[in-house]
Amino acid sequence: MTTDPLVIFTPSGKRGHFPVGTPVLTAARQLGVDLDSVCGGRGICSKCQITPSYGEFSKHGVTVAADALSDWNSVEERYDSIRGLKQGRRLGCQAQILRDVVIDVPAESQVHKQVVRKRAEVREITMNPSTRLYYVEVQEPDMHDPSGDLERLVTALCRDWDLPDLEADLGVLRNLQKALRKGAWKVTVAVHLGDAVFSPRIVAIWPGFYEGTIYGLAVDLGSTTIAAHLCDLRSGEVVASSGIMNPQIRFGEDLMSRVSYGMMNPTGSDEMTRAVREGMNALFVQIASEAQIDRDLIMDAVFVCNPVMHHLFLGIDAYELGQAPFALATSDALSLRALELDLNLHPAARVYILPCIAGHVGADAAAVALSEAPDKSEDLVLIVDVGTNAEILLGNREKVLACSSPTGPAFEGAQISSGQRAAPGAIEHVEIDPVTKLPRFKVIGSDIWSDEDGFAETIAQTGVTGICGSGIIEVIAEMRMTGIVDGPGLIGSAEQTGSPNCFADGRTNSYLLYDGTAAGGPLITVTNTDVRQIQMAKAALYSGARLLMDKFGVDKVDRVVLAGAFGAHISPKHAMVLGMIPDAPLDKVTSAGNAAGTGARIALLNTDARAEIESIVRQIHKIETAIEPRFQEHFVNASAIPNAVEPFPILNALVTIPAINHNQGGDRGPRRRGRR
Amino acid sequence: MTTDPLVIFTPSGKRGHFPVGTPVLTAARQLGVDLDSVCGGRGICSKCQITPSYGEFSKHGVTVAADALSDWNSVEERYDSIRGLKQGRRLGCQAQILRDVVIDVPAESQVHKQVVRKRAEVREITMNPSTRLYYVEVQEPDMHDPSGDLERLVTALCRDWDLPDLEADLGVLRNLQKALRKGAWKVTVAVHLGDAVFSPRIVAIWPGFYEGTIYGLAVDLGSTTIAAHLCDLRSGEVVASSGIMNPQIRFGEDLMSRVSYGMMNPTGSDEMTRAVREGMNALFVQIASEAQIDRDLIMDAVFVCNPVMHHLFLGIDAYELGQAPFALATSDALSLRALELDLNLHPAARVYILPCIAGHVGADAAAVALSEAPDKSEDLVLIVDVGTNAEILLGNREKVLACSSPTGPAFEGAQISSGQRAAPGAIEHVEIDPVTKLPRFKVIGSDIWSDEDGFAETIAQTGVTGICGSGIIEVIAEMRMTGIVDGPGLIGSAEQTGSPNCFADGRTNSYLLYDGTAAGGPLITVTNTDVRQIQMAKAALYSGARLLMDKFGVDKVDRVVLAGAFGAHISPKHAMVLGMIPDAPLDKVTSAGNAAGTGARIALLNTDARAEIESIVRQIHKIETAIEPRFQEHFVNASAIPNAVEPFPILNALVTIPAINHNQGGDRGPRRRGRR
Repeated sequence: MTTDPLVIFTPSGKRGHFPVGTPVLTAARQLGVDLDSVCGGRGICSKCQITPSYGEFSKHGVTVAADALSDWNSVEERYDSIRGLKQGRRLGCQAQILRDVVIDVPAESQVHKQVVRKRAEVREITMNPSTRLYYVEVQEPDMHDPSGDLERLVTALCRDWDLPDLEADLGVLRNLQKALRKGAWKVTVAVHLGDAVFSPRIVAIWPGFYEGTIYGLAVDLGSTTIAAHLCDLRSGEVVASSGIMNPQIRFGEDLMSRVSYGMMNPTGSDEMTRAVREGMNALFVQIASEAQIDRDLIMDAVFVCNPVMHHLFLGIDAYELGQAPFALATSDALSLRALELDLNLHPAARVYILPCIAGHVGADAAAVALSEAPDKSEDLVLIVDVGTNAEILLGNREKVLACSSPTGPAFEGAQISSGQRAAPGAIEHVEIDPVTKLPRFKVIGSDIWSDEDGFAETIAQTGVTGICGSGIIEVIAEMRMTGIVDGPGLIGSAEQTGSPNCFADGRTNSYLLYDGTAAGGPLITVTNTDVRQIQMAKAALYSGARLLMDKFGVDKVDRVVLAGAFGAHISPKHAMVLGMIPDAPLDKVTSAGNAAGTGARIALLNTDARAEIESIVRQIHKIETAIEPRFQEHFVNASAIPNAVEPFPILNALVTIPAINHNQGGDRGPRRRGRR
Repeated sequence: MTTDPLVIFTPSGKRGHFPVGTPVLTAARQLGVDLDSVCGGRGICSKCQITPSYGEFSKHGVTVAADALSDWNSVEERYDSIRGLKQGRRLGCQAQILRDVVIDVPAESQVHKQVVRKRAEVREITMNPSTRLYYVEVQEPDMHDPSGDLERLVTALCRDWDLPDLEADLGVLRNLQKALRKGAWKVTVAVHLGDAVFSPRIVAIWPGFYEGTIYGLAVDLGSTTIAAHLCDLRSGEVVASSGIMNPQIRFGEDLMSRVSYGMMNPTGSDEMTRAVREGMNALFVQIASEAQIDRDLIMDAVFVCNPVMHHLFLGIDAYELGQAPFALATSDALSLRALELDLNLHPAARVYILPCIAGHVGADAAAVALSEAPDKSEDLVLIVDVGTNAEILLGNREKVLACSSPTGPAFEGAQISSGQRAAPGAIEHVEIDPVTKLPRFKVIGSDIWSDEDGFAETIAQTGVTGICGSGIIEVIAEMRMTGIVDGPGLIGSAEQTGSPNCFADGRTNSYLLYDGTAAGGPLITVTNTDVRQIQMAKAALYSGARLLMDKFGVDKVDRVVLAGAFGAHISPKHAMVLGMIPDAPLDKVTSAGNAAGTGARIALLNTDARAEIESIVRQIHKIETAIEPRFQEHFVNASAIPNAVEPFPILNALVTIPAINHNQGGDRGPRRRGRR
């Protein structure tokens, strides 16, 4: 039996016997314990900090004496005096094992640490970035045995870090000789660890030990906005977040008008490509300046986007996406150099674009799938990414289905008479008194209801300017609950509804929400055309979801996740009253926030997640709504509020939706609109 | 026992039985016979032509009947009527096997055909280029099973051509959808088959069957000139060759002055990089225009060059190469995209740069090693690439040694009083009459000796303008043989030598070669300083070779190969009289022409040769002359003409070199020049 001291690492529980005098870092490496080190145990980087535990550990069957580790040495003392070492901490490369000991590896000393997201439904991200830093000492050149500086650097990286035979980027080759000599043959390199496309490569070099870090970008390229998170590739931390409008908007507000612009103008597609790449670069300048870092330190970027944005960003004409059979040029994930996309990051920066699911279900939906993981869900989850095009996922551990449905921009406040984007002054919450049938509301930028004291003061700056997406959903749902709107979607007259705010407006009625005209402000009403727009949009959304339920062979779902920035503001109850989403317990309808952006961040920080989502996407069953006969039937039924055929038992147990009909032979609902 | 017909392929000898009706191409593929096809057996490309042999084949034990193959079909008839099929040829994909048959695969129908070089010492090049064309028929998109166009193309390439899961270049993605639709789902693609750096990728696409070919460049980037061969990547044929001056010459004639320019000017290195890349692009324009092809069809390029050119071409400061220990930034072979070097070829074109052997022995020497294959030589071969820097290889199957030696530019006519580059009007051959001690000569552009009738007429255009490198070697060797120059390198006076052409010229004597002053032409003489320059240069060359012989443990070599454009013009006898090269039978001193350029062409056409030279270079023993004490000793001995200590028995059996000494106490030879 060995008499060497026993070392037990926590939280991993890995254990082994090591000769007296073995550094803790060496023991950790031999046991495969996840203990970080950039300098390879030279006492420079301080990443290998550990905490020895002392006393009786009956669970492990050891007692740790006070002298289990060697005393502080000069390296630790110097580090502590300059930077300060946390109470109880030691440097793993300096502290030597003298007797049995239990060593705790704190999270920040783990390479593959978990990055906790600040949300209720936390999904931890395991750190495993594409690009890592390594400190190394290189043999000097020798005329008796001539070899290139690069070859000796590669040998050292192989010896000290078990890295394979690395290639080097041309930029590294250009800086290599100066860096080696300036650093007295000690350098820090950034290594891209390779993927299906790129072999492992040295992508950057610094003389000596580089104290800084490197960064990556997670970018959600939307039709309307481009949002990016700048992440520290060592800690996983988001160091800045920023967004800009997609400059392509000047070529068309929605996707199809951009596809048309490309068709109508010989250089249209190239113009849009240039615009989005320029916008991207502007965003990068902005986010780097916010974080006060050099843009050259950004070495990786992950992009998620819908298929049209995907093609235009890559410089591919999106023509084919505008017509059946909606063929993508490519659906697989792409690994590129940032330079190929004219992106100004580090010259060797890599770009990863998540796979598209189908011609209408893009890399953004794949990112949502990565973030929300329906494929790992025990219960059946419906995930809806609400936007101009709703992307819908339905699934559980057994299988996942996906489709998209063209909701149009009504949910974003567009094509609504008093609609506007979510901005200060926009009405975002509405209640209608069931007795007086009069409304009250809240605007963005104020927490006070419009009928409460002090409301006028809080809106003095912004005024009341219009209704945003979540506001329009609430007001129509409230109108439906109070009988102002009937099932087929008709607004009743003041007599029919008993509401003084209903008034005749051409051949139909409108409902007055706010009259600011006395003060030179707007008259904000809900017209019957507004109701029709929302009916069309929510019918598209619901029928897509319902079609997936058919394909799955179910009549109900266990829970509903609303993704997208907009989804975060939707009131589940009102959405369900409108019949946007299937009947479900209200507490089972949750918001995932910007799930696509989160998916991008997961893929940025953990390259294993890239392989994971590529595999998930291959297994997702794609449903093309355009060729499904039942989609039309579902759409017609879903045009009624909440639905012409679905019973919605859970909803009906919560609220009473009056069974009324304001029709007097005129407008009979949206299905006849085409004939008017 | 099978009764299926027996098929025997020649020249491979591969044989097998196949069911009646099997197309010849199918049989060839199943047997692994090297029979080309771009269209995959669809009767489109005509690359699979074969010649059936009829009659008795006792060697193979078969008799081939006239009806061994099926009759001509309509595809063959159409092809023959449009393009013409050679007598006896059939299309392998159309002709079906009916009875026992012997099938010859002509060289042009082989993928890995041998490309024969038009030189005596032929080394065949096996075709195995980096990039190949494939014709393929792709499945149309299907809304019920959505997938990207690229993914269906990749599937088809995998199914029809056994290609792995290919990636596609961004340029291909941009053209993919149009090409597929224009070609009615039939396309031809160029596939880069991958290497250590690049995964296999589709790099170009054409709608339908692409009738053309693709090209590659073999480039010899010299300090003075850049020469390129444009090769057909299918046939291996050189379709155009062209050269330009290296624009870097304006920064310095020789390598060290360019290194200095980079040291003295903060942007010097970058300027030189830009200059050589611009020159390269100008050369590409020129060669593509000569061949009347689109530069966009050039998909691969191989470069060979010395280490300084290597670094400056890559954009690496050559500073370290100007001083001990002469550390290269990298010595390994490089695989890059042409775009990374700002080269205007096909946007996806690849670049391969051969490995460097050591700080003074570059990729050009590696190319010479690939072309001349000392590592495969039974006898001991000394290979000298004569230039400003002589690169020297010595070896056989056992081992190969390499060094370089700084000969300076004297062999190129520089630093010689009447020296000039090899151009019309330059004296290239000289004879001195052993009795009269008077010279006669030939100039470039004329085949008539200067003392023959009609000489004046043939030089009327050019005049006699100077002496080129080979001329200076011949005149000094002739001067030595006729006793005009003595062993230590001193020119005698008219009295000492008995030559009326010797005349006092300052403290030493000169020798008159040509007096054109009467007609306003030059006075062409050989001064004692000229002799000193050649002595220095040849001593450097010889002592490098001798050092390698020491290291190899030999006193003589079996044969000598002179590489380089200059080597092609050197007279072996005169070179040996000067003591430039070791003693060897004259018929064993041969010229390899531009062996570096040939090596580049081999690496271009056969990617296996790239792995081969990388492995050879790793095994070559590098000798650094600067740190070898014996090099100085050899140099001093080799300063004498032919040599102070070497006996040169073979040479002495051929010519008599007078043992004389013109020294009268003045100049005592080159070793004292430093003190004058």
